[in-house]
Amino acid sequence: MGLKEKLFEKLEAKEESMIKTRRHLHQNPELSFKEENTAKFIEDFYRDQDVKVTTNVGNGYGIIVEIKGKAPGKVIGLRADFDALPIQEEADVEFKSQNDGVMHACGHDVHTAYLLYLGEALIELKDEWTGTIKLIHQHAEEVPPGGAKSIVESGILDDLDEVYGIHIFPMLDVGEIGLISGNSMAGRSNFDLTIQGYGGHGAMPQTTHDALVAGAYFVAEAQTIVSRRMDPMDSVVVSVTAFDAPGGYNVIQDKVTLRGTVRYLQEENKVPAHEAMQKIVKGIESSFDVTCDLDYVYDYPVAYNHPEETSYVDDILSKSAGSYFDKIVYPKPSSGSEDFAYYTVKTPGTFIHVGAKPEGVDLKDVYPNHHPKFKVHEGSLLISAKTLGDVVLSRLES
Amino acid sequence: MGLKEKLFEKLEAKEESMIKTRRHLHQNPELSFKEENTAKFIEDFYRDQDVKVTTNVGNGYGIIVEIKGKAPGKVIGLRADFDALPIQEEADVEFKSQNDGVMHACGHDVHTAYLLYLGEALIELKDEWTGTIKLIHQHAEEVPPGGAKSIVESGILDDLDEVYGIHIFPMLDVGEIGLISGNSMAGRSNFDLTIQGYGGHGAMPQTTHDALVAGAYFVAEAQTIVSRRMDPMDSVVVSVTAFDAPGGYNVIQDKVTLRGTVRYLQEENKVPAHEAMQKIVKGIESSFDVTCDLDYVYDYPVAYNHPEETSYVDDILSKSAGSYFDKIVYPKPSSGSEDFAYYTVKTPGTFIHVGAKPEGVDLKDVYPNHHPKFKVHEGSLLISAKTLGDVVLSRLES
Amino acid sequence: MGLKEKLFEKLEAKEESMIKTRRHLHQNPELSFKEENTAKFIEDFYRDQDVKVTTNVGNGYGIIVEIKGKAPGKVIGLRADFDALPIQEEADVEFKSQNDGVMHACGHDVHTAYLLYLGEALIELKDEWTGTIKLIHQHAEEVPPGGAKSIVESGILDDLDEVYGIHIFPMLDVGEIGLISGNSMAGRSNFDLTIQGYGGHGAMPQTTHDALVAGAYFVAEAQTIVSRRMDPMDSVVVSVTAFDAPGGYNVIQDKVTLRGTVRYLQEENKVPAHEAMQKIVKGIESSFDVTCDLDYVYDYPVAYNHPEETSYVDDILSKSAGSYFDKIVYPKPSSGSEDFAYYTVKTPGTFIHVGAKPEGVDLKDVYPNHHPKFKVHEGSLLISAKTLGDVVLSRLES
Amino acid sequence: MGLKEKLFEKLEAKEESMIKTRRHLHQNPELSFKEENTAKFIEDFYRDQDVKVTTNVGNGYGIIVEIKGKAPGKVIGLRADFDALPIQEEADVEFKSQNDGVMHACGHDVHTAYLLYLGEALIELKDEWTGTIKLIHQHAEEVPPGGAKSIVESGILDDLDEVYGIHIFPMLDVGEIGLISGNSMAGRSNFDLTIQGYGGHGAMPQTTHDALVAGAYFVAEAQTIVSRRMDPMDSVVVSVTAFDAPGGYNVIQDKVTLRGTVRYLQEENKVPAHEAMQKIVKGIESSFDVTCDLDYVYDYPVAYNHPEETSYVDDILSKSAGSYFDKIVYPKPSSGSEDFAYYTVKTPGTFIHVGAKPEGVDLKDVYPNHHPKFKVHEGSLLISAKTLGDVVLSRLES
Repeated sequence: MGLKEKLFEKLEAKEESMIKTRRHLHQNPELSFKEENTAKFIEDFYRDQDVKVTTNVGNGYGIIVEIKGKAPGKVIGLRADFDALPIQEEADVEFKSQNDGVMHACGHDVHTAYLLYLGEALIELKDEWTGTIKLIHQHAEEVPPGGAKSIVESGILDDLDEVYGIHIFPMLDVGEIGLISGNSMAGRSNFDLTIQGYGGHGAMPQTTHDALVAGAYFVAEAQTIVSRRMDPMDSVVVSVTAFDAPGGYNVIQDKVTLRGTVRYLQEENKVPAHEAMQKIVKGIESSFDVTCDLDYVYDYPVAYNHPEETSYVDDILSKSAGSYFDKIVYPKPSSGSEDFAYYTVKTPGTFIHVGAKPEGVDLKDVYPNHHPKFKVHEGSLLISAKTLGDVVLSRLES
Repeated sequence: MGLKEKLFEKLEAKEESMIKTRRHLHQNPELSFKEENTAKFIEDFYRDQDVKVTTNVGNGYGIIVEIKGKAPGKVIGLRADFDALPIQEEADVEFKSQNDGVMHACGHDVHTAYLLYLGEALIELKDEWTGTIKLIHQHAEEVPPGGAKSIVESGILDDLDEVYGIHIFPMLDVGEIGLISGNSMAGRSNFDLTIQGYGGHGAMPQTTHDALVAGAYFVAEAQTIVSRRMDPMDSVVVSVTAFDAPGGYNVIQDKVTLRGTVRYLQEENKVPAHEAMQKIVKGIESSFDVTCDLDYVYDYPVAYNHPEETSYVDDILSKSAGSYFDKIVYPKPSSGSEDFAYYTVKTPGTFIHVGAKPEGVDLKDVYPNHHPKFKVHEGSLLISAKTLGDVVLSRLES
Repeated sequence: MGLKEKLFEKLEAKEESMIKTRRHLHQNPELSFKEENTAKFIEDFYRDQDVKVTTNVGNGYGIIVEIKGKAPGKVIGLRADFDALPIQEEADVEFKSQNDGVMHACGHDVHTAYLLYLGEALIELKDEWTGTIKLIHQHAEEVPPGGAKSIVESGILDDLDEVYGIHIFPMLDVGEIGLISGNSMAGRSNFDLTIQGYGGHGAMPQTTHDALVAGAYFVAEAQTIVSRRMDPMDSVVVSVTAFDAPGGYNVIQDKVTLRGTVRYLQEENKVPAHEAMQKIVKGIESSFDVTCDLDYVYDYPVAYNHPEETSYVDDILSKSAGSYFDKIVYPKPSSGSEDFAYYTVKTPGTFIHVGAKPEGVDLKDVYPNHHPKFKVHEGSLLISAKTLGDVVLSRLES
Repeated sequence: MGLKEKLFEKLEAKEESMIKTRRHLHQNPELSFKEENTAKFIEDFYRDQDVKVTTNVGNGYGIIVEIKGKAPGKVIGLRADFDALPIQEEADVEFKSQNDGVMHACGHDVHTAYLLYLGEALIELKDEWTGTIKLIHQHAEEVPPGGAKSIVESGILDDLDEVYGIHIFPMLDVGEIGLISGNSMAGRSNFDLTIQGYGGHGAMPQTTHDALVAGAYFVAEAQTIVSRRMDPMDSVVVSVTAFDAPGGYNVIQDKVTLRGTVRYLQEENKVPAHEAMQKIVKGIESSFDVTCDLDYVYDYPVAYNHPEETSYVDDILSKSAGSYFDKIVYPKPSSGSEDFAYYTVKTPGTFIHVGAKPEGVDLKDVYPNHHPKFKVHEGSLLISAKTLGDVVLSRLES
């Protein structure tokens, strides 16, 4: 029996525990940067194992578990995130969230559960493989600045040769594994724009500098960032998501606040999109005699899947397609953002999509990630564990 | 000694009481439609007088005091309003408001105080003049639908031949009396516009119908109502005063609400302005694939000062200029609104401005009506009483 | 028989000549600044009369005819313009324009004809009145910079005490005379805006700076000059009348040109409207990365009818209402412009409207000034002559 | 010596003729649909050859040359276009265009010249290969509706198994061959939008329905088609390229005309982009009380390079890289359009880019296709001939 077969046998034996653990986590979700009990649970899991566990890594409860194989070799990181979202669960599951207003609505419970048992299995087999595996149990993926950036900056992953991670998606069938080469998820900037005009009586606009009107024209002009300034072959989104100017009928606003997000699948559009908005803001200041404060933050970078490593993974998994999973698919890149992006800025690697569509649900009826009724097929746990196990053993050997 | 001289002598004697009463009212302001104690105070004032007092007139605490002269004749209404505003007083006066967050910041305390004592004096002299005087102590001028409309509709003023009122303004010097012939204060419509789109992820605009963007273009298009649709020789204002769409960075709004006011100095623009907005709203619905609900309310009409009555008043006061006041001035019409407008829709009359600039304050430093530091010169009380007394006696005789 | 009666008798005797002369002028219209033959005709008319005729006054064919009365006294100017328009006549009259593409479509033929014979009559009676009358036969009213400004600047009218003029309007009935006190016709600024972007392929906007899009947002922002910046009690118009950017389907414009007009009934809005546009232009430059050249020209000022002189004329004509004309009316001010405005900047005076509606035509079917089918009632000639004769004799005596 | 080697030897021997012919065509360019002499030249070239030449194919001077090999087999089409552009040549070459205002500024002279000699060589060797080759000498690529659509519709290519074509690009180095799999060049729709308002005097907007202002807001709203309606992962461009509204200062436009182009790299966005514009147009009609006529034409489809055939070509050329050319590159898709697209709608195939950068010119200084100074490296002719020869022989054998 080969090493991979041994690993898979162990994982199959642990499937029930994986699911139990996943349900435990699901019932006890914690918000980003506040995952104290989740982190404790993970730390406890590795207690008495022959591994080095580092806690409180980075700007929160990040945990790095270092597993050394029989001899030195490649160093490979495997990442799973463990924070939850400020959403009131509405899914009809027996193991519903017990924390009011908090929910694992993005599958991080699944990620953590499969990685714990994949880790355990790899520890059990560590005399049979060469190299080092670093399990990255990451906090705070959902809220900028996220946990990944600070973990990378801590230096604890400086020796990584490669890094891999998985995200489950209910929009893919169980049995489908998605690979994207190159830019796979969008980089993100967020902005707050405060427009300070000069308020006054609704019937006397000439005595005011109407900040609300300035804000409206800003929104109209901001459409041209994507429509005129960006290469149509690239992918950029500018969304104004908030226009905060409540009020009565009689008073022209003194100050309004707008907010929004900018996404780009090409990192090289990060700065030009910002500059284009700055120019528009400056234009609005002049046109409407107002003063603007644009607070523009570069957030998660573009998630780049290194083509070479993606190709390795494609080759590895192609051999397994039809066994523990059905087939590899190649989704479009996504305009969503992920702080896994920080890991691959310096370390080669790729981020793998694992299908988790609930049984008997049509694709069009699937509740997407972040929905209060988000649900996953738990068959995706074992597939995730095997997939990443498959990849890491092959890559350690290479 | 003529009747007018007798009246003026009485008023001069009552000046101290007027001021005292005004200060009492100032210390005890009550919000529109909630002026229970103020109404009680007024009712008590006329107790035991030989007049007919009708309380709870219209949709609130309105009070009509009917004074019959020595013989039947003309019936003339004199109106003063008595509600206060939801403003925390910041003026440095000894008799500051004792009701938290409520303030007589528009001079209605002054209006009520002078009319009470003018009424008292006219009652004392009622055997010397012919006709009927109806004192209109009106509630709720500040909040639509106001008190005036309902008082008029109650029928209690159906026999009026003429109607007059006064408003004090600190932007005019004490001693200045302002007359405007024709349209003098703007009519008003208020609107709420709810735009129902279809929300979604900030990074996936194509799955949404962006209500916020639709709202912004509505604001931009709404500028053309005034700039393109209205006769430039007329006066119309369209102000969007609220854009209620708070939110985070990631979610495209499902629904946004806008609010605003439309003012017009010519009643004939009321409907066309409404229709122009309806067309724009329908256009926005099509352009942005959203559903709009425009709740558009015709509020106070244009305040029309009948030219003939204004001219009568001009003639009457011209003879007094230089005695109890300095001079008549002719201000521009105002884009503000007043529910005195309802009285002159059917009854001829005019609305007189009385100067009340605080002593020693430069015009540019005057706090306008509705300002937390609003202050008036109390010399304006006696002048107001004499002015309206002068007018009513002359008009009764005519 | 009084002087006025003598004058009227003479004018009545000359009516047939007036009409004949008017028709001659109508058949021989000349464009602004090219009125060589018209000026010659006028000059010839006064040949051998005992008056001082100065020709080529100002920047064109202006003619000043000075008539001295029996003794020195007041100096009063009477103005009539004589240029025609670049319009192909379509009116069905016997005396149609014989100059292709040129037409007296604004009544300047009428103005000139009545003033010639009023002048002749005043000359015949000059031993009976005191003072000096200056007939101002003005060229080039229709095309900026107009003739009036240069005539005033020539100094030849520096001794004027008062100045009057008449314009005929077919929208008023024959027999109606219109007076407006104060600002009566709008001041005018014209602008050309050139937006220099950077052109390119229609499929590659990111390589361009799209001048056409910049121009479109300029138009949208320019609406706010009137809707937000100007006092709604004032009257201002901003019209973009040209957007010159023809082209094919594939090329994004390198440069576009816009053009328009700004009108204001209050001279004090001339500069603020200009400044507001400058700010918007600067804003567009920043927002769209283009370079703008705004060529903004202050043209005819607001035509101001001095209230005192207007009131004099009102009094004078009130006495005649019902005799040679029916009644005085008081029209709204007009957003059109007139270079008569230059005369009243320094000299008191007023500009009188004389009704000229063609017989048997409904008001709604009247062709307005500047229309190819423009037509007038020739009864307006004698009325105009009498009106201005009435005014000038009264004012000389005063 | 293999067949390919024989072909290449022949092509090398013909290089001088190829270049001579290319220069002849360059000196005698003809506009789309008017390529009478060019077609004659091509027809003459094949005279007395043992091939079937069909002329006047489709809606113009299209020529199909059918070459039958030693035995029936696959049928493969090779396409070169031969029309020129309405551009005055400014390039400094000895063989400048001799037709005023007409220029081969897109390399169609090169395409035609290499295909003629590749055809000749393939004819000479036709006893050595199996199958049928159809040379497609296509007219009118530059002007919609183009020649390709009608040639396909004629049925003459119904038996094609595969189809290939080449375009030279001076932005690629000589020796570089570019392959794009899938959507490679944008589909195109063109539109004309006529906005019928109601014109009038520039000072009286309220009497008009301002078509120019409506047009400006249309441009502003049209930006949202790309920014809000389209999947950011797709590629769509909406450019308004003309705003045809010249005029003077005083007249508000009665009617304006806009024009533009819509590009899409995904055929499935063709209809949604059209529908989005229709909705905006309908919205503008309502908002601005105007009537719009949107003339929207679906033009060239998306040029789709079939992945399988592209992959075949990649494999074939990979073996030759380093011999007659340097390397294969994989350019971004282009937002430009090509009517080669019509051939691959039904027949599998791919469109190959061949580098033609002039010697000694920096990439940034290269004059692009359609520029009056457009120039190519003539080494690209032999490379083109060999490339397509290489591909066709391999594919016939497969």
